[in-house]
Amino acid sequence: MKTEDRVLGAIDVDGLLGSVSDLIEIPSVTGEEAKAQKRVAEVMREIGLDVDVWEIDLETLRLHPHFSMEVDRREGVGVVGVMGEAQGRSLILNGHIDVVSAGDESNWSRPTWKGTVEDGRIYGRGAVDMKGGLCCALYAAKAVLDAGVKLNGRLLVESVVGEEDGGVGTLAAILRGYRADGAIIMEPTELKIAPAQAGAHCFRITIQGQSAHACVRGEGVSSLEKFMPVYNALMDLEKRRNTGVKDPLFATYRLPIPLNIGIVQCGNWPSSVPEKLIFEGRYGIGVDEDVSEARRVFEEAVARAASLDDWLKKHPPTIEWWGGQFNPARTSVDHPLTTTLAKAYQDATLSGPVYEGVTYGSDMRHLVNVGKIPTVLFGPGDVRLSHRLNEYVPVDDLVKATRTLALTMMRFCGHS
Amino acid sequence: MKTEDRVLGAIDVDGLLGSVSDLIEIPSVTGEEAKAQKRVAEVMREIGLDVDVWEIDLETLRLHPHFSMEVDRREGVGVVGVMGEAQGRSLILNGHIDVVSAGDESNWSRPTWKGTVEDGRIYGRGAVDMKGGLCCALYAAKAVLDAGVKLNGRLLVESVVGEEDGGVGTLAAILRGYRADGAIIMEPTELKIAPAQAGAHCFRITIQGQSAHACVRGEGVSSLEKFMPVYNALMDLEKRRNTGVKDPLFATYRLPIPLNIGIVQCGNWPSSVPEKLIFEGRYGIGVDEDVSEARRVFEEAVARAASLDDWLKKHPPTIEWWGGQFNPARTSVDHPLTTTLAKAYQDATLSGPVYEGVTYGSDMRHLVNVGKIPTVLFGPGDVRLSHRLNEYVPVDDLVKATRTLALTMMRFCGHS
Repeated sequence: MKTEDRVLGAIDVDGLLGSVSDLIEIPSVTGEEAKAQKRVAEVMREIGLDVDVWEIDLETLRLHPHFSMEVDRREGVGVVGVMGEAQGRSLILNGHIDVVSAGDESNWSRPTWKGTVEDGRIYGRGAVDMKGGLCCALYAAKAVLDAGVKLNGRLLVESVVGEEDGGVGTLAAILRGYRADGAIIMEPTELKIAPAQAGAHCFRITIQGQSAHACVRGEGVSSLEKFMPVYNALMDLEKRRNTGVKDPLFATYRLPIPLNIGIVQCGNWPSSVPEKLIFEGRYGIGVDEDVSEARRVFEEAVARAASLDDWLKKHPPTIEWWGGQFNPARTSVDHPLTTTLAKAYQDATLSGPVYEGVTYGSDMRHLVNVGKIPTVLFGPGDVRLSHRLNEYVPVDDLVKATRTLALTMMRFCGHS
Repeated sequence: MKTEDRVLGAIDVDGLLGSVSDLIEIPSVTGEEAKAQKRVAEVMREIGLDVDVWEIDLETLRLHPHFSMEVDRREGVGVVGVMGEAQGRSLILNGHIDVVSAGDESNWSRPTWKGTVEDGRIYGRGAVDMKGGLCCALYAAKAVLDAGVKLNGRLLVESVVGEEDGGVGTLAAILRGYRADGAIIMEPTELKIAPAQAGAHCFRITIQGQSAHACVRGEGVSSLEKFMPVYNALMDLEKRRNTGVKDPLFATYRLPIPLNIGIVQCGNWPSSVPEKLIFEGRYGIGVDEDVSEARRVFEEAVARAASLDDWLKKHPPTIEWWGGQFNPARTSVDHPLTTTLAKAYQDATLSGPVYEGVTYGSDMRHLVNVGKIPTVLFGPGDVRLSHRLNEYVPVDDLVKATRTLALTMMRFCGHS
């Protein structure tokens, strides 16, 4: 039996599904990942990886120019599992353990915090984004070890915190010295190969009104009413920007660089004219776009809307760039990492690889821009199901991703 | 010296201003009035009133058909000060001790919770709405007592809680048996006589969307986007309703029956399409309008907007009538209460009385509709300054109101 076939045959599918479910059962909303990280480290040890677990020094990290964070984090744990020798090319497989909040749990048709295997899917918060992908990396490594295969280069499996709000965990791993000749992040790409990702900067805008008793509401200035022209200007901006995207990696997207308003908070009493409105959102940035120029265009759109309103002219909205600041990143489609992954996918799944950029921010930017590590996204499931109720990952995708990652690590790192 | 002149001469202006400031220093936001009520009872005793202080039985009150409340109240204290005999007409002077929250205190140019006398005004939360008016009643009673005058009829000074969110305090006083031949509420009418008030029902509307990751926001449904047609429909409704108001008591109002949206809460993560938007507001109702019909018109406007949107058609907004439900009320301009007050105002201030309806809800509806007590609003200061930063009441108004109330109680109740 060929070595590669032996490794593919050693993949422990039951263990894989069990581990995904186990991790879903530990709610690890961004900022509260310690318990889940402990569990990942245990799994790594059971598999046979050397495990590095450390407390992230948030105070030092905060000074880094690429640091960004939204939640009020008290602690962060880094976990990296290592195998292989130092002779071949090294490879990082990176997955984040943090998940977004459940939303309104009563709207879920299946348990939020329990992995439910049903109709060939695993349901639960984090299934697709991205405990599923993280477990694929772990079980690919396990298959290699279980088959008695030794990698020539180092394989580093990184379980990172804080991806959803700025990538503090991956940044911490880079600063701890973890580099490699290539990196794959198992974000849900539907098993497409994503060598490019658009950026996304989070923003907060404050609109000031003037309070008054509701009974003379014409004498106050409603911050909600003054929000309307700013909202319309931003929706117009989104439309204009998205008509100009030519990159073939983004040809399938209706909104390659979306502008999402995710939070609005306005007023504090039904019978008062609302004095203040604060809204927060996420501004998509093109892969090759200059980040400062993108911000300037955004700020200009808000300023222009304000200039057309007598009140806003005198009380201009304030813009803060705050929280997740995901810069875009790109790796060549001709890089050995990309080509090795594509060939491995073809051999593992008997289907042709598909290349497509992604519109979401991920830790790719830290690996590429800070770590200078060529990085590609590749993982099970559909990102459309993430951050959403009834999130799930297909079991078939999990198996295919694990097979592909196993072949990729053997071919990229070499083995004996 | 004529008796009336002796009473007017006995008005303790320094004491009046001091008491207003004292009460402003006790933050008595709706639901947390116990400490301020205790202080009012002390002042009443110092003045020489017989004081009834009682713990309101909220559980029993909750069953009353006119009960309405927004805050999560744990307790409520009733305070009524009584003087005079049972021979003449009885009069209630009603003022609420609760105030709305401060809003953003950093925007106040003077202390929020401290009475600051400056430029002939007292500044601070509650100055005009309506600790100022309440103190006028107390100091009018004090002047009568200090001048050694005995009223033939009972005078009842009521300090009530929970006016801002439904009138639980005044309802409790009525149910405790406090009735009279007339009532004046010292709400800020700029010393105009208000024998009519529009109603106001608070509402909450929930708009359901569908969450999605911001990077594929077109695949979710933004509850904010779906709020827009409902918002526009309600603003249109407000415009239409306010063009049809003919009552001369409301001729000066640009919006006699305003529709205010006071709170919007939407979404919980900048990078998620917001799944749910909840907004709350206050719907003005005309003085002689049928309340059920007014609600029907409102509900129909929301339903019509929803019917024109494919998503909202399938996921119709839900409407709750919740919190303050202020029905309209009216007292004849020819009633002896109204005419006595008007003449007293003329004699006390040497200016002609002005009649004007008010657009805000107040406890008038409970006194009129539940207690069957003819009621008029009359008090110092401008309601436009209430629920607003840098709220103040003019000292001159406080003095004029106190003089007017002193003459009114003497003439309405009779005296010896």
